[in-house]
Amino acid sequence: MEQCKEGGAAKHEIVISDTSGRPPVSKDSVVDLEFGDPTMYESFWKGMGDRGTITIPSWQTISYFSDATNLCWFLEPEFAQEIRRLHNLVGNAVTEDRRIIVGTGSSQLLQAAVYALSPSDAPEPISVVSAVPYYSSYEPLMNHLRSGLFRWAGDACTFKGDSYIELVCSPRNPDGFLSQAVLKSDGGKTIHDLAYYWPQYTPITGPADHDIMIFTFSKSIGHAGSRIGWALVKDTAVARKMVKFLEISTIGVSKVSQIRAATILKVVSDSYENPIPGNQDKVFAFGRHLLANRWKKLREIVEASGIFSLPEFPSETCKFTGETAEILPGFAWLKCEKEGIEDCASFLRSHKIIARGGRFFGAEPKFVRVSMLDRDETFDLFIERLSSIR
Amino acid sequence: MEQCKEGGAAKHEIVISDTSGRPPVSKDSVVDLEFGDPTMYESFWKGMGDRGTITIPSWQTISYFSDATNLCWFLEPEFAQEIRRLHNLVGNAVTEDRRIIVGTGSSQLLQAAVYALSPSDAPEPISVVSAVPYYSSYEPLMNHLRSGLFRWAGDACTFKGDSYIELVCSPRNPDGFLSQAVLKSDGGKTIHDLAYYWPQYTPITGPADHDIMIFTFSKSIGHAGSRIGWALVKDTAVARKMVKFLEISTIGVSKVSQIRAATILKVVSDSYENPIPGNQDKVFAFGRHLLANRWKKLREIVEASGIFSLPEFPSETCKFTGETAEILPGFAWLKCEKEGIEDCASFLRSHKIIARGGRFFGAEPKFVRVSMLDRDETFDLFIERLSSIR
Repeated sequence: MEQCKEGGAAKHEIVISDTSGRPPVSKDSVVDLEFGDPTMYESFWKGMGDRGTITIPSWQTISYFSDATNLCWFLEPEFAQEIRRLHNLVGNAVTEDRRIIVGTGSSQLLQAAVYALSPSDAPEPISVVSAVPYYSSYEPLMNHLRSGLFRWAGDACTFKGDSYIELVCSPRNPDGFLSQAVLKSDGGKTIHDLAYYWPQYTPITGPADHDIMIFTFSKSIGHAGSRIGWALVKDTAVARKMVKFLEISTIGVSKVSQIRAATILKVVSDSYENPIPGNQDKVFAFGRHLLANRWKKLREIVEASGIFSLPEFPSETCKFTGETAEILPGFAWLKCEKEGIEDCASFLRSHKIIARGGRFFGAEPKFVRVSMLDRDETFDLFIERLSSIR
Repeated sequence: MEQCKEGGAAKHEIVISDTSGRPPVSKDSVVDLEFGDPTMYESFWKGMGDRGTITIPSWQTISYFSDATNLCWFLEPEFAQEIRRLHNLVGNAVTEDRRIIVGTGSSQLLQAAVYALSPSDAPEPISVVSAVPYYSSYEPLMNHLRSGLFRWAGDACTFKGDSYIELVCSPRNPDGFLSQAVLKSDGGKTIHDLAYYWPQYTPITGPADHDIMIFTFSKSIGHAGSRIGWALVKDTAVARKMVKFLEISTIGVSKVSQIRAATILKVVSDSYENPIPGNQDKVFAFGRHLLANRWKKLREIVEASGIFSLPEFPSETCKFTGETAEILPGFAWLKCEKEGIEDCASFLRSHKIIARGGRFFGAEPKFVRVSMLDRDETFDLFIERLSSIR
């Protein structure tokens, strides 16, 4: 009987391994923390049991269209609703009078936003800038197709000119600081990349209220593999051009992923709005607790080493939790202070630690960015290996 | 009791409407057949009950990575396996010694392939061409970012030069004919867009064996909303550059959609490899039967009208079914033969039928492309309205 059951199940189900993706680490492994792969959230979601599980029959989401009456016709209405609900709960972004645009992760939305803000009739591509240290993906995102509409122009702080698009990443990837636009000109535009503006990483100081704000499912609650991001956009014409970009490049965004994102954001909001006393089901609290622990360990090792240093952050009141909270970035922006070592990434690589070197962020090679979001086993091995460096 | 059950379900489930997307048609509706939205497959998948249903717990597919050891590190191994299995079953493409690259629909893969084939050091962008009538999305796909690497150069038949990328769409969107590359030069490259090379649309004359072949989940078995396509790529260096493109532009492809695609392709292959006698569970047979019926109705109306004409196709033996089969395209390439009417799309619009005009395909405005893949109610209304035109 049991065999029949198993046979029947196997017939229609695809079995996905528990820890699909990167192989688990062993004592001798290279510790790869180059990417911000948010696998630390796996243990949280495992603890949630069947909450957030999706079941989708084969006849659903066949059409390209989610809502033909919406400007963003490929946006699942239930997902839009859960996005507004979550921002209202957390208080990290204004959603009133904003169009919601869904993208295949925030990278695609960054391109869509830059495309939408680029003048179509300019003789030269518009300059896209961001203050150093800037997110390492901005440059390839802007330059890989050698667009005649826009081009990467590097550090916003040294940029001269009135016509530009400034990418403002806050909290900033790689260094974690809350940041603001550095350029101010009537001809300039800004795009706010708020991937990390969530209460596990930073005190929420108030609802962000910018023209274009971009968020991602990946960093907010850990679901990178679903490739879902969203933008809150004030201007309808800009929103329409963003939709056009997404329409041309991928004819919309996976509806299956959107349904999953809606389901999971709903679980998150439910856990705060209808709390079960004593239940460990709050993802932001989980993230904050784990990151606080990791940052404590890392700061101890770094201090004891005498070789490295880390940024120091002020504490502020988080309006979401009501508590004083420090900044706990998803990345450690580690500086090698040891004399004679100019290239921190190479130095760490010789100790079998892979991190992304400062140059990718427009900064000195004395810096590296180390992901703080990996699985426990990887983080623990990183700490162990770092502590052995003399 | 029932209420409690419903309440419990509602707590964790997002309810998606049955016919999400475009509103159902009524007698007075505008009949919109501009897009190739493959909603005719909904009734097939409804008939499959729970076969193809996916259930994904919240802790799965969190990582960006699907298989870090694979060149295409964001490709779910189970999906790759089902792609090879289905091509082997149908016999429509060689998969041996091919890299599989997954994309957010075939549009993204077309861009990735063109990016991969474009020389990075040429003084001018390489010309991308396709024989008229070409798929209307090729031009915006190639031109929307005004890339310095490649640019749309229109009709392959009139192209002069040795350096080019030719897009070969076979069966051709919009007119349904099987086609081959028209240009031949050592400096030229080809990309084969085989979205419709499946047995419901055309006799399978043998396994396609080209350098880059692109397929889509959307047209093969009707799942457009999941945004999944795949490429079979011979050259590893080209495959690597395609992966680079997908990495930069969207950091991979929805894993949830890939799991769904794997599950559904498995159902399709199972239905042919382990057939249950009398069972109406074969998607290609379903598609062929329905399209044969629709094409018959359409040809009758067109013949009776004296106003329109349609392409005529030869019949051939389909190596998949072993039967003589005619071409039954997913689009009707309708020509208005009525004197004084130059713009068929405008003419049809005045009769509340929306179709895409010939100019979008590099052809005369006497032509329009009409989707044959919509829901029954839409197709029936189209036939009714077309038959009323005198």
